[in-house]
Amino acid sequence: MSFQIKELPVVFIGAGKLATNLAKAMFENEFQILEVYSRTKESAKELADNVNAKWVTDLQNLTTKNALYIVSLKDAALVDLLPQIIKGRETSLLVHTAGSIPMSIWGNTLRHYGVFYPLQTFSKKHEVNFKEIPFFIEASSPEDEDKLKVIALALSEKVFIADSEQRKSLHLSAVFACNFVNHMYALAADLLQKYQLPFEALLPLIDETARKVHTLSPDQAQTGPAVRYDESVIKKHLDMLADEPSMQDIYRMLSQSIHIYQSYITTKKQD
Amino acid sequence: MSFQIKELPVVFIGAGKLATNLAKAMFENEFQILEVYSRTKESAKELADNVNAKWVTDLQNLTTKNALYIVSLKDAALVDLLPQIIKGRETSLLVHTAGSIPMSIWGNTLRHYGVFYPLQTFSKKHEVNFKEIPFFIEASSPEDEDKLKVIALALSEKVFIADSEQRKSLHLSAVFACNFVNHMYALAADLLQKYQLPFEALLPLIDETARKVHTLSPDQAQTGPAVRYDESVIKKHLDMLADEPSMQDIYRMLSQSIHIYQSYITTKKQD
Repeated sequence: MSFQIKELPVVFIGAGKLATNLAKAMFENEFQILEVYSRTKESAKELADNVNAKWVTDLQNLTTKNALYIVSLKDAALVDLLPQIIKGRETSLLVHTAGSIPMSIWGNTLRHYGVFYPLQTFSKKHEVNFKEIPFFIEASSPEDEDKLKVIALALSEKVFIADSEQRKSLHLSAVFACNFVNHMYALAADLLQKYQLPFEALLPLIDETARKVHTLSPDQAQTGPAVRYDESVIKKHLDMLADEPSMQDIYRMLSQSIHIYQSYITTKKQD
Repeated sequence: MSFQIKELPVVFIGAGKLATNLAKAMFENEFQILEVYSRTKESAKELADNVNAKWVTDLQNLTTKNALYIVSLKDAALVDLLPQIIKGRETSLLVHTAGSIPMSIWGNTLRHYGVFYPLQTFSKKHEVNFKEIPFFIEASSPEDEDKLKVIALALSEKVFIADSEQRKSLHLSAVFACNFVNHMYALAADLLQKYQLPFEALLPLIDETARKVHTLSPDQAQTGPAVRYDESVIKKHLDMLADEPSMQDIYRMLSQSIHIYQSYITTKKQD
């Protein structure tokens, strides 16, 4: 089945970070990428050239051949373009890659549709190892679910079935564990720059913080002044942020949240 | 010199997470640990047994031999116990391990003193690789600085000199890059639990988020709905957090901060 599935050509609608990484990984795994659509020629061509495909900037000109259409657009663009995307492709398999959009968006004119959601943070300039990326799949029928599973298993070792509600919560959790985390890195980098210290000094700590939650739960792994609300350290830190009121607000809010959270966990364990 | 330095016996005042990890690493590297002080017998004995040292729960009974005294106490305890710690040890080398306490706390009765600050997050149950941990050193004289450097280099490949101001800002940055980051993991774990999803599903994303900032700056690495302030996604997420007002506040504040920060960076680059 793994060989046959690669005979189903793939069309990408969207050429953003996720589409770029996914298309390249599929191309390397010998999937045949037929066409790439993007609103701008620059990004359509860039991705198409990388995966030996045709590029298209007008949805009217996109093939309607029987294929797997992977739609990876910003949420608003997906909603806008949906009628054009569906039209003439009623018998193909159409999937989107968005964590926060339910499968039901595909409506009731398609026969084969679903969601193909790799839970990862992608950048155009930074390659990721797809083997480790968890894929969350949802489909309109057990047969289409099987197809998507086989495709995902060709790329990754971690393939799960998740409904739209679960995917929404995965996406929200990912905002905390990735986007908010990365913003903490950004704020730390700014602080260090202010004091002429290199961001690299923090990398072993950043790595260890991530490594720790592989063997300890995040509440067990927590350290630092906020756990016991060490007022003397917290006050010093807030003073150091006196000319950065928004960082000061973040520091205060997160320290309080850590303290309440860790106290609650400790109380619960003593019960 | 590396051999000689190990002939200077080491005394630990404090047996918390940092002291435990540091004492064990020194013991494995053939330093001679003489005594371990902690307020409670349980933790004094636990660490002492691990590093073949005597345990002491009363500072009055602690040796005053010529030694390296490594003081690793909570900030408030260090201040309280300082007179007792210094008394009778005027010719020994005394260091503390606190990021947020200046070297000047040692006052002017000691001849040899300093700070020995490993920038890492420690847990008693989780071993770390000391070779990768950056040590930041400050001392009362070039000779003592050299001594501390040689000691640190016996444990780690990354040894730096940093004054008290720089160390304070390292410590504050570490709160963002480690404690606040870990709290984001904790909040994400709670969300997933609510929806019966395993925290493990996030580990590849957590790892990649940390890995990315080895090659991209945090602002280049940022992704997610807050970068362009995607109101439709953000609204959905805030709705999902309706019964968690404090997580909702954190989500709102950090999304706004990301948006402002990333917009500022983009504008700066276009200038």
